[in-house]
Amino acid sequence: MFEELQAIVGPERVTRDPGELYCYSFDSSYVRGHADYVVRPKSAEEVAEIVKVATKYNTPIVARGSASGLTGGSVPVKGGIVLDMTGMNRILELEVENLQAVIEPGIIHKELNNELIKHGFFFPPDPGSSDMCTVGGLIANGGSGMHSVKYGTVKDYVLGLEVVLPSGDIINTGCKAPKTSSGYDLTRLFIGSEGTLGIVTKARLRIHPLPETKSIMMATFGRIEDAGRAAVSVLSSGVIPAAMEIMDGSAIKAVKELDPTLEVPDVEAMLLFEVDGYRESVTREVGLICTICEQCGGTTRVAKNKNEEERLWAARRLVGVAITKLNPGKVRVYEAEDIGVPIKDVPFMLKKIQEIGRKHGMSLVTYGHIGDGNLHTGIAINPRDEAEWKRVHAVKDDIYDVVLSLGGTLPAEHGVGIIRADYMARAHGKGYEVMKSIKKAVDPQNIMNPGKMGM
Amino acid sequence: MFEELQAIVGPERVTRDPGELYCYSFDSSYVRGHADYVVRPKSAEEVAEIVKVATKYNTPIVARGSASGLTGGSVPVKGGIVLDMTGMNRILELEVENLQAVIEPGIIHKELNNELIKHGFFFPPDPGSSDMCTVGGLIANGGSGMHSVKYGTVKDYVLGLEVVLPSGDIINTGCKAPKTSSGYDLTRLFIGSEGTLGIVTKARLRIHPLPETKSIMMATFGRIEDAGRAAVSVLSSGVIPAAMEIMDGSAIKAVKELDPTLEVPDVEAMLLFEVDGYRESVTREVGLICTICEQCGGTTRVAKNKNEEERLWAARRLVGVAITKLNPGKVRVYEAEDIGVPIKDVPFMLKKIQEIGRKHGMSLVTYGHIGDGNLHTGIAINPRDEAEWKRVHAVKDDIYDVVLSLGGTLPAEHGVGIIRADYMARAHGKGYEVMKSIKKAVDPQNIMNPGKMGM
Ligand SMILES: Cc1cc2nc3c(=O)[nH]c(=O)nc-3n(C[C@H](O)[C@H](O)[C@H](O)COP(=O)(O)OP(=O)(O)OC[C@H]3O[C@@H](n4cnc5c(N)ncnc54)[C@H](O)[C@@H]3O)c2cc1C
Ligand SMILES: Cc1cc2nc3c(=O)[nH]c(=O)nc-3n(C[C@H](O)[C@H](O)[C@H](O)COP(=O)(O)OP(=O)(O)OC[C@H]3O[C@@H](n4cnc5c(N)ncnc54)[C@H](O)[C@@H]3O)c2cc1C
Repeated sequence: MFEELQAIVGPERVTRDPGELYCYSFDSSYVRGHADYVVRPKSAEEVAEIVKVATKYNTPIVARGSASGLTGGSVPVKGGIVLDMTGMNRILELEVENLQAVIEPGIIHKELNNELIKHGFFFPPDPGSSDMCTVGGLIANGGSGMHSVKYGTVKDYVLGLEVVLPSGDIINTGCKAPKTSSGYDLTRLFIGSEGTLGIVTKARLRIHPLPETKSIMMATFGRIEDAGRAAVSVLSSGVIPAAMEIMDGSAIKAVKELDPTLEVPDVEAMLLFEVDGYRESVTREVGLICTICEQCGGTTRVAKNKNEEERLWAARRLVGVAITKLNPGKVRVYEAEDIGVPIKDVPFMLKKIQEIGRKHGMSLVTYGHIGDGNLHTGIAINPRDEAEWKRVHAVKDDIYDVVLSLGGTLPAEHGVGIIRADYMARAHGKGYEVMKSIKKAVDPQNIMNPGKMGM
Repeated sequence: MFEELQAIVGPERVTRDPGELYCYSFDSSYVRGHADYVVRPKSAEEVAEIVKVATKYNTPIVARGSASGLTGGSVPVKGGIVLDMTGMNRILELEVENLQAVIEPGIIHKELNNELIKHGFFFPPDPGSSDMCTVGGLIANGGSGMHSVKYGTVKDYVLGLEVVLPSGDIINTGCKAPKTSSGYDLTRLFIGSEGTLGIVTKARLRIHPLPETKSIMMATFGRIEDAGRAAVSVLSSGVIPAAMEIMDGSAIKAVKELDPTLEVPDVEAMLLFEVDGYRESVTREVGLICTICEQCGGTTRVAKNKNEEERLWAARRLVGVAITKLNPGKVRVYEAEDIGVPIKDVPFMLKKIQEIGRKHGMSLVTYGHIGDGNLHTGIAINPRDEAEWKRVHAVKDDIYDVVLSLGGTLPAEHGVGIIRADYMARAHGKGYEVMKSIKKAVDPQNIMNPGKMGM
């Protein structure tokens, strides 16, 4: 097989050197695997030839972006070939007047936006990992970020894909027109399929003009229910903030411990809002949000300049850091770290998470995108301590029970990978059987990222 | 089989009376078929039992909303059971504070909106057939309407579906949370699948607060290219009109012939804009649109009151009527009536359509949603004249050639059904094989609406 792979990409872009292979044995979760070969393709045609080799030898083939994934998604848990996609990182077309860009999947998210911003445009889905993750990885995970409350997720920004199938066939999904109702929505099927159905080699993206201006504001609440009421009232009033973040008491406490100079009162909850658009509508929306939050018992503060904006967001930005910094010797483990519930149930969910933490004697720090019901829980443990792992899994099970009883989702944006594979049957019931039958139809040998999503 | 169907729904809600069956033999296209039985289910459980009977007897089963479809989608071209879904027409949950509603599929689109409007909300996808079509039919066709440039299509407003599979199993796709990245996107797979994969028995919809105000304006252009430039410049300036419609010379001529009092100059193209949102941003956007249109050589007019708004839209509303009224004795045939191209290519496409009409000696009237590249062409013929049919098909083939060469789509919103089934392979290449393999995996006996989409 090694010789055949070399024949496709040349000796430079394929390796079986143990040191190099080691670097491809993990992602940002705690999942570990072992690749037999790593190949660095430069074109869809090369990918197609490599996939044919994998099919011929019945060998797993795993696409890998930047391995910033938190689920083991790009980890070769069953060996085989890892396709390092980061070499396919060009912007192939930039048609700003058509509001479209065509990219290769290995481009780093931030680099795409750096280029678009020069033209007054941006690609709205904004994962926290923008500096490192690839757009292909974002597509494969069906991810999103802070601004999805207004701008939607990556699913809303892909018009079409070029995909290499297990057969080695290259297909094009979607079209160049902004909308279509022609046949099954294959674009959407491949988005979020985590490399289990095919390898994305090109994507036609929708891009968006940059907003004229933005404004940042904070509202603090003595009772978390009031924050929840405020969030729901803002959205149903017709205001759609660009971002609407929540931090509960646990998160506020954590960041204040880390940086006591932060001007955040000791409250049960705070909401952070970003509003963007035309100057006049931003002014209007900031006013509306303040009124609604105050009617719900909140205290509001609007940033008056860039410096104050920085200060207001500092708290939010510090949460991730606080989770590990406050627990020296411990590391953050990504379990139950990404859940979604109906917006109105966010306060209830946050209270439940604290209750579950107390029950298992673990301190949980929770924050997230209340605007789309997406919460992140931070857990830090000593990963060598078996007992701590047990508690993590107990906490996770309890959290997932509540999420599913609310009709929510796990995950909301990080994908399933290995760490949530066991929950697929429970989350989707007989729908999971449909997913498995589709997998079987498209990838009968199960060579595409086997084991992920429980496939 | 008749007795088994009666046992499920009782004698009142199943029929094989030829007169009644006749009423279920067509939709709004020219496609005709013949049903063996019509059943009117009241619940998902009944649908499941009926589907099991169909599976047992290997009989086609065709869901039917209001038969306003233009493709033969709900026509029983291979006989079998027609499921009349209009009896399942309740709003089951209306959670305005969660921006969600749960409905049965048979509810009439307009009736849903009449109810939502009472609460200050609406369901944005807005087909021209709102008064008659069901939301289930809209979902099954992946349809949209005039306001999709700002608000998106029906695909963007379904959070989850309850679907009866060919096995009789009832699955739930999606979740109650606003976003998810858990597994393959089955919701999106069933949307636009035209009843070929399963019967939709429930849908969880996203709803939207009503905008504060709206404004209507018109811009006329001596040259169609200038209208195209204006449309593209408006969108890339960051203005997103609620609707942006185009009428070319053919459509303007047609409506002026029908109503000579219309104050529309004899020009190559006109754009109609609707802008909605906050009062101040509407004022701002109307100003921006006027400036851009004038810079592109257009003459603009803004409606000053409801009455003027009516007058401005009258032209657009009359096009459909004009196509038949101006051709006494002829009827409109829906062929090549729904295409999508990249926005920037709309002027080119409109010119090509006129060229193709001249080549085949047919007068074609074209109009559409330039904001999302979606054009509608009206053709009226004497349906008993074989020679006219030949020309229709020649026109259609030529139009589709251009659309596909531009990377566009047929259809953009009306679905595939029977009338576009032959183009699936050409439009999707090997992607069509993937669709067929999914169909086979989900519906191995091919009982679900066989023949549609070429399945
Ligand atoms: C600090 C931090 C913050 C984060 N914040 C967010 C966030 O806000 N929102 C969010 O959604 N995620 C977030 N993530 C998770 C992760 O970064 C994203 O999902 C990211 O998009 C993954 O991209 P990647 O290039 O690193 O993909 P990888 O981790 O390399 O791979 C992810 C999955 O995609 C598949 N894949 C990669 N490329 C292809 C391809 N070309 N074709 C087919 N399959 C492919 C892999 O097989 C794997 O299943 C965060 C992660 C970290 C570490
Ligand atoms: C004057 C006019 C204007 C129109 N304007 C528009 C427009 O602007 N935009 C647009 O998108 N369309 C438009 N259409 C086309 C059509 O009205 C829409 O697609 C409509 O949504 C179809 O709904 P229906 O209830 O009539 O469905 P039907 O015609 O009865 O069925 C359509 C398809 O849906 C399937 N189906 C119906 N219910 C179910 C169910 N519960 N489960 C599974 N499958 C089901 C059927 O099998 C069929 O394949 C227009 C039609 C007319 C006549």
